[in-house]
Amino acid sequence: GSPGIPGIPGQKGKDAFVHRSAFSVGLTERSPAPNVPIRFSKIFYNEQGHYDPSTGKFLCSVPGTYYFAYHLTVYLSDVKVSLYRKDKAVIFTYDQFQNNNVDQASGSVLLHLSSGDEVWLQVYGNGDKNGVYADNLNDSTFMGFLLYPDPENY
Amino acid sequence: GSPGIPGIPGQKGKDAFVHRSAFSVGLTERSPAPNVPIRFSKIFYNEQGHYDPSTGKFLCSVPGTYYFAYHLTVYLSDVKVSLYRKDKAVIFTYDQFQNNNVDQASGSVLLHLSSGDEVWLQVYGNGDKNGVYADNLNDSTFMGFLLYPDPENY
Amino acid sequence: GSPGIPGIPGQKGKDAFVHRSAFSVGLTERSPAPNVPIRFSKIFYNEQGHYDPSTGKFLCSVPGTYYFAYHLTVYLSDVKVSLYRKDKAVIFTYDQFQNNNVDQASGSVLLHLSSGDEVWLQVYGNGDKNGVYADNLNDSTFMGFLLYPDPENY
Ligand SMILES: [Ca+2]
Ligand SMILES: [Ca+2]
Ligand SMILES: [Ca+2]
Repeated sequence: GSPGIPGIPGQKGKDAFVHRSAFSVGLTERSPAPNVPIRFSKIFYNEQGHYDPSTGKFLCSVPGTYYFAYHLTVYLSDVKVSLYRKDKAVIFTYDQFQNNNVDQASGSVLLHLSSGDEVWLQVYGNGDKNGVYADNLNDSTFMGFLLYPDPENY
Repeated sequence: GSPGIPGIPGQKGKDAFVHRSAFSVGLTERSPAPNVPIRFSKIFYNEQGHYDPSTGKFLCSVPGTYYFAYHLTVYLSDVKVSLYRKDKAVIFTYDQFQNNNVDQASGSVLLHLSSGDEVWLQVYGNGDKNGVYADNLNDSTFMGFLLYPDPENY
Repeated sequence: GSPGIPGIPGQKGKDAFVHRSAFSVGLTERSPAPNVPIRFSKIFYNEQGHYDPSTGKFLCSVPGTYYFAYHLTVYLSDVKVSLYRKDKAVIFTYDQFQNNNVDQASGSVLLHLSSGDEVWLQVYGNGDKNGVYADNLNDSTFMGFLLYPDPENY
């Protein structure tokens, strides 16, 4: 007999899916306490709810590569902060304050995160370097976003 | 008869359509005027033309989540700026200048924008905090990019 | 005789592809030499290996639009740096140091890069503005990432 008909076309490959995970928050009061996450409670963006304003921590839900950045007003005391991932300080930012010379200090980093990893900002030391300042006309901010989600078979 | 030939391979999954909207610009002169957008006229990137150097404003064409950042040289006067969205100041950045101590001030934020929203940077106050400096060997910059376009049925 | 059985289904189509190119690095020693790329040798992220810690240069493999940012601790001397692309300084960042007043200086820019383009950070001038500081509790960092890959027929 004649050959059978050709097989059906293969399944379509998966469309790219836009994974979203991001937050952008600000401080509402000055001089955060040392040894605990800084609690940024002004919300510029937190649509997926992965940043928790009650704890100050970002929780990774989508494994992948993330960008974090912070911009802090330095006023009345020196500022020394660390960005933490899973209880380990990753980067340190130090800026000294002199009278009549309000300063700005910032930092950024790219990190690969796994599901469940937490990231936050914290004052370093015993509390004398907590000159992180904010009021209704001065901001100190913290933000992060998923840049590249991991491939599904990572 | 013999089996038919294998079917043709499936269609490739749709690549995400890459929506692009971004700008990265710098100042060419110092001490911008207060009460109007700062006009950054040095263009590092503006391929889609969504930033207008004649007005200093970025116009949102693709609704979605955007990242904005600015880095300013602080020289000869204090600097206080606000990032505006649709006539409302969103964040404030203040850095004081002391003689012989040029400083750098920066800020960043993530915002969700709708089509037609405008975003710009502006000197705050009556003009005494306009120490934003630039020349051919010193930069003050402003940039933004679309991070996550909204889903089509948003 | 009767027709053969249908052929096997075709192969599954290709999933959409996520292009990745990014790095995030830090300095391990202070006062980089002038006239050569600053060699950041602490690696926070460099999964695709496009940043070379032995030269301090990022090499573009995927043509497209890239974001670069740096955050530098200013201590013991003034800091003046340039971000270079293909042997041409693109942006300049200057921050003066005064005793007892450690500062932070940062910059960022978006650039379109072609395959083979190299980008790096360098101290400007003859060496007196090399107060870029780092130790195990103070960071100076440099990072970059591919934001929008070029379309395939660009
Ligand atoms: Ca200052
Ligand atoms: Ca300074
Ligand atoms: Ca300082």
